[in-house]
Amino acid sequence: MVNTEKDLEQQFTSINTSIQRVNIPPPQPFFKTFKSSLKETFFPDDPFRQFKNQSSSKKFVLGLQYFLPILEWAPRYTFQFFKADLIAGITIASLAIPQGISYAKLANLPPILGLYSSFVPPLVYAMMGSSRDLAVGTVAVASLLTASMLGKEVNASKNPTLYLQLAFTATFFAGVFQAALGFLRLGFIVDFLSHATIVGFMAGAATVVCLQQLKGILGLQHFTHDTDLVSVMRSVFGQTHQWRWESAVLGCCFLFLLILTRHISIKRPKLFWISAMAPLTSVILGSLLVYLTHADMHGVQVIGELKKGLNPPSYSDLAFGSPHLMTAIKTGIITGVIALAEGIAVGRSFAMFKNYNIDGNKEMIAFGMMNIAGSCTSCYLTTGPFSRSAVNYNAGCKTAVSNILMATAVMITLLFLTPLFYYTPLVVLSSIIISAMLGLIDYGAAFHLWNLDKFDFVVCMSAYFGVVFGSVEIGLVLAVSVSMLRVLLFVTRPKTSVLGKIPNSMTYRSVDQYSVASRVPGVLILHVDAPIYFTNASYLRERISRWIDEEVDNLKSSGETTLQYVILDMGAVGNIDTSGISMLEEVKKHTDRHALKLVLANPGSEVMMKLHKSKLVEGIGPEWIYLKVGEAVEACNFMLHSYKSASGPTKTKSETQDNNV
Amino acid sequence: MVNTEKDLEQQFTSINTSIQRVNIPPPQPFFKTFKSSLKETFFPDDPFRQFKNQSSSKKFVLGLQYFLPILEWAPRYTFQFFKADLIAGITIASLAIPQGISYAKLANLPPILGLYSSFVPPLVYAMMGSSRDLAVGTVAVASLLTASMLGKEVNASKNPTLYLQLAFTATFFAGVFQAALGFLRLGFIVDFLSHATIVGFMAGAATVVCLQQLKGILGLQHFTHDTDLVSVMRSVFGQTHQWRWESAVLGCCFLFLLILTRHISIKRPKLFWISAMAPLTSVILGSLLVYLTHADMHGVQVIGELKKGLNPPSYSDLAFGSPHLMTAIKTGIITGVIALAEGIAVGRSFAMFKNYNIDGNKEMIAFGMMNIAGSCTSCYLTTGPFSRSAVNYNAGCKTAVSNILMATAVMITLLFLTPLFYYTPLVVLSSIIISAMLGLIDYGAAFHLWNLDKFDFVVCMSAYFGVVFGSVEIGLVLAVSVSMLRVLLFVTRPKTSVLGKIPNSMTYRSVDQYSVASRVPGVLILHVDAPIYFTNASYLRERISRWIDEEVDNLKSSGETTLQYVILDMGAVGNIDTSGISMLEEVKKHTDRHALKLVLANPGSEVMMKLHKSKLVEGIGPEWIYLKVGEAVEACNFMLHSYKSASGPTKTKSETQDNNV
Repeated sequence: MVNTEKDLEQQFTSINTSIQRVNIPPPQPFFKTFKSSLKETFFPDDPFRQFKNQSSSKKFVLGLQYFLPILEWAPRYTFQFFKADLIAGITIASLAIPQGISYAKLANLPPILGLYSSFVPPLVYAMMGSSRDLAVGTVAVASLLTASMLGKEVNASKNPTLYLQLAFTATFFAGVFQAALGFLRLGFIVDFLSHATIVGFMAGAATVVCLQQLKGILGLQHFTHDTDLVSVMRSVFGQTHQWRWESAVLGCCFLFLLILTRHISIKRPKLFWISAMAPLTSVILGSLLVYLTHADMHGVQVIGELKKGLNPPSYSDLAFGSPHLMTAIKTGIITGVIALAEGIAVGRSFAMFKNYNIDGNKEMIAFGMMNIAGSCTSCYLTTGPFSRSAVNYNAGCKTAVSNILMATAVMITLLFLTPLFYYTPLVVLSSIIISAMLGLIDYGAAFHLWNLDKFDFVVCMSAYFGVVFGSVEIGLVLAVSVSMLRVLLFVTRPKTSVLGKIPNSMTYRSVDQYSVASRVPGVLILHVDAPIYFTNASYLRERISRWIDEEVDNLKSSGETTLQYVILDMGAVGNIDTSGISMLEEVKKHTDRHALKLVLANPGSEVMMKLHKSKLVEGIGPEWIYLKVGEAVEACNFMLHSYKSASGPTKTKSETQDNNV
Repeated sequence: MVNTEKDLEQQFTSINTSIQRVNIPPPQPFFKTFKSSLKETFFPDDPFRQFKNQSSSKKFVLGLQYFLPILEWAPRYTFQFFKADLIAGITIASLAIPQGISYAKLANLPPILGLYSSFVPPLVYAMMGSSRDLAVGTVAVASLLTASMLGKEVNASKNPTLYLQLAFTATFFAGVFQAALGFLRLGFIVDFLSHATIVGFMAGAATVVCLQQLKGILGLQHFTHDTDLVSVMRSVFGQTHQWRWESAVLGCCFLFLLILTRHISIKRPKLFWISAMAPLTSVILGSLLVYLTHADMHGVQVIGELKKGLNPPSYSDLAFGSPHLMTAIKTGIITGVIALAEGIAVGRSFAMFKNYNIDGNKEMIAFGMMNIAGSCTSCYLTTGPFSRSAVNYNAGCKTAVSNILMATAVMITLLFLTPLFYYTPLVVLSSIIISAMLGLIDYGAAFHLWNLDKFDFVVCMSAYFGVVFGSVEIGLVLAVSVSMLRVLLFVTRPKTSVLGKIPNSMTYRSVDQYSVASRVPGVLILHVDAPIYFTNASYLRERISRWIDEEVDNLKSSGETTLQYVILDMGAVGNIDTSGISMLEEVKKHTDRHALKLVLANPGSEVMMKLHKSKLVEGIGPEWIYLKVGEAVEACNFMLHSYKSASGPTKTKSETQDNNV
């Protein structure tokens, strides 16, 4: 069958017009696209949807309910709920009191601050928070971080007043920062702490916190202010003659008791109250033991006097004029972000179990307000700790009322029961901290990361070792940089793969993934797996040139059909910038030089718009841009075979060259 | 036609087995994948390919040729080439001498250093460089940067020896850094300076350099050391009584002459030599004028004495023990990167014109070696300036021999002609610098960026205004951060779009891009446009939930078929991390809660492997993962219609729910 060239061209045109072509989207006004991309960036959850088509009074009520969710659920509150919340509230209070005192010691703050911090912030959160399961309180990691960051500037034992002022100031700025993130809809910054980072960071922080407890367990008077493993080990083994066996024995006994009860509760979730009550029981037992044996005279340190009474106001202690203000701000921002990350992750997890939604930005505002209020009422940084929230959840809490009831229990303690803690040995507090921390070291999660994604495992380990051998900040910065590097690396070295035809279909897929896929003779189909940006433009140019050169060489040595068409599958190219456009222009030149025809398949709207604006569509020829790889291959095959039969292979080549000019 | 349920299930299974399923790639040994991804990251150009299957002596020769490309092309050098190179060499020498002196003044260094720097480095580059068109020399931006960064630490006029030592030391470290980047195959770091950044940065630097020339043009003795617009304007208009009209008139005349010749050469590229010769002509004319009119006595500053003789050695001046070492290292690294970016971009552009390849990493080694050698022979930082290389190219150079001939011409000047520059007025040098700088302000490119890509325009403008109103470093850091932000933003807020069916095909495309695409009743098809990483996992979870909720609401209000299937098109999801996997698990829970079936289409090999390892394949059901969106829709339609006809819509819903358990 011999056709004239004109016939062939007509046939080609008719094939091309019978199929759907790639659309060039109509140009959008700049401000419209700008507005919609701003909306997607800052309001992806569309919080204004419920306000649409409402009367203005209804809008006001909805707005009030947005900021104070208690107004939404309080009218529906029932006595059934109250019974459940009461049990949960008392249970978490019995955990909150010893933990509060312990963590305040960890932050080098007066122990009473731990109780204060379990009174005001839970009340604020109960009104503003949207989680039903979160139990508010102080956390070990933020406490340690406060101690280590402020401790660098001010010695807590030598200058306790200034240290206390800086702690309140840091809490204030943490609150301001958290609320600002929420108001400015920048909540996604917290997402930059990936799951892997948090697993490694938490485990590292838990290790560091446990190491710090060696001071209490061994009854040491002097201890290093550094948190890294090397300093702590040097400090511990540098003063072996100071170790107190009484303290160590007591500590190990209580630690054993606490770990045992934790194991029982893990095996039988219904017995959650055993592990929830264990810390308070230990405190009572320990205090009784010291009181009866007068162990405080024999090297067992005790808490001593705790002031009776509710939180004194502390807004006059906020040290805005202090020369250490910058340290307080830095401490506030870092601890604030860490606290947010933990609190929001915890809130989300339990919301997922119970099938309701948590609004991240709203939660941030609630956390922020709770810390601002806390900083004015002698509290330090609070968030939603995992352990306490889990106990709350297991105890069957229904709403944030459990937080109010916990606060009430703490209030009663503050008003009447503080003298009872006089003989509580510090070593019991250390045991409580250690047993809580062991739960944060999640071997299982690290193993899961190793199995699933090696890079995430590296992120996790860099966070862990950074915290343990460097400091909490070093670990955090390291892990965030490594995870950012991964994202940048993905965009810097995108995958390119050769596609082949899946038998009995018009589908083309990577020959690496599908061994059944067969390559089309004379046509090289390349798939690019990422947006084409300045970071990868030169890599892609070199890589595509290498694919082409290798293919040309291979075909030459095997003596098969020569390569004539290069199809770029742009289906996964989400966007392109000006460097990417130049890259495509250079690829076009490269193919022209080899007398090859460049064909594009399936460019998205963003990419197509830029190709059109840069006149590259004309350069390639609009008839050579196809919606599907299959259609592009069909057109190439048509040209290959028809021209060959019409005028022989030599003619084909010169014809292709002419087309390229 | 009523079927039993068993029949239907059999039919569904037979449909499923007749098509190609998504492959789970066989697990690869960890070190193999690690090795191949290392290779793609650091050796994308596969430099070892030519060494394959060669004898060891041949390998040695090839290795030597790799590092000294002159060994490769010198044997093929002909007299024809020499004639062309001679013309080009003399032309660029006539440009190099006045520019060298001018830029050395800009760097606050003795003018003779500009000539030294045009002698040794070109010789080194001629042996090691792979570009045939690059003309080596000093550049204005790096000179200015050296002056501003070192000037902050050491005053060049008060302590010239120390300043000179630091300049050599900075050059040494720039060379070490450049060579290290090349050896460690980290050349891609230069790619992080995108085209848009460079356009803005160059224009900003050119503006700043022009502003600095006001000192020379107005004949001012004292001038600010800052480079920002505000400081310079204050300095210029703060001493209006010091302005010298003689100097200004002379400067404007020469500037007019130079700009005129540039315009002629742009209009008629064949007359390139007019603009190439203009600077030297201006120097000669200016010197004669001063000599004859004794203008040096009337406020026109002249160069003064230049020492005769070749480069003195300066390795003993490298100040490794200086307290300012860190400044020198910082200056070296920043100027080194800027110089590399310019040199490599220039080399690549001309290689593209002449159809040969430039190896970026090899070029970096050449640049590095040239600067290390330069720092030991009284040269400061050199690279491949655009203007001089363009003249070289236009003059018809064939190989790097033109650099050797330029160096020879400079050598002759150094040996015999330096006294001739005694009367050269500084104002002529300022005019030469200004006219060269005006060519670097590329309005056209900025306009092109605005048209093509608004974000790139923002990057360009932030570089420009950062340099002009802040400093060179501020502009650079600003532009790089903004362009990084863009990459991160792409991965943080990926596009999701709804797909519809293109008429008369099995193809599904975005309904936004293709208005002909029609949505399938009862099925929501979502396309995700980026890898699913921790940065976008929570956004995607919220966005997908919102798509589903909106679709459910819409269908409810319109009373059409209820939504029953959600198909996620994973074709553009290049990779997924553990946060992404958790996100998919949560989407699965969300769809289960709405009694919807989640279906995946076209996951890539990386994604499929992780879905398999995380057991999510079992969670979704392997029969609900399809190779193509079309096949997934077919299966959904089959289930929708067959079950409906078999057992009515009510049954369908409960059936779907059962499936989901």
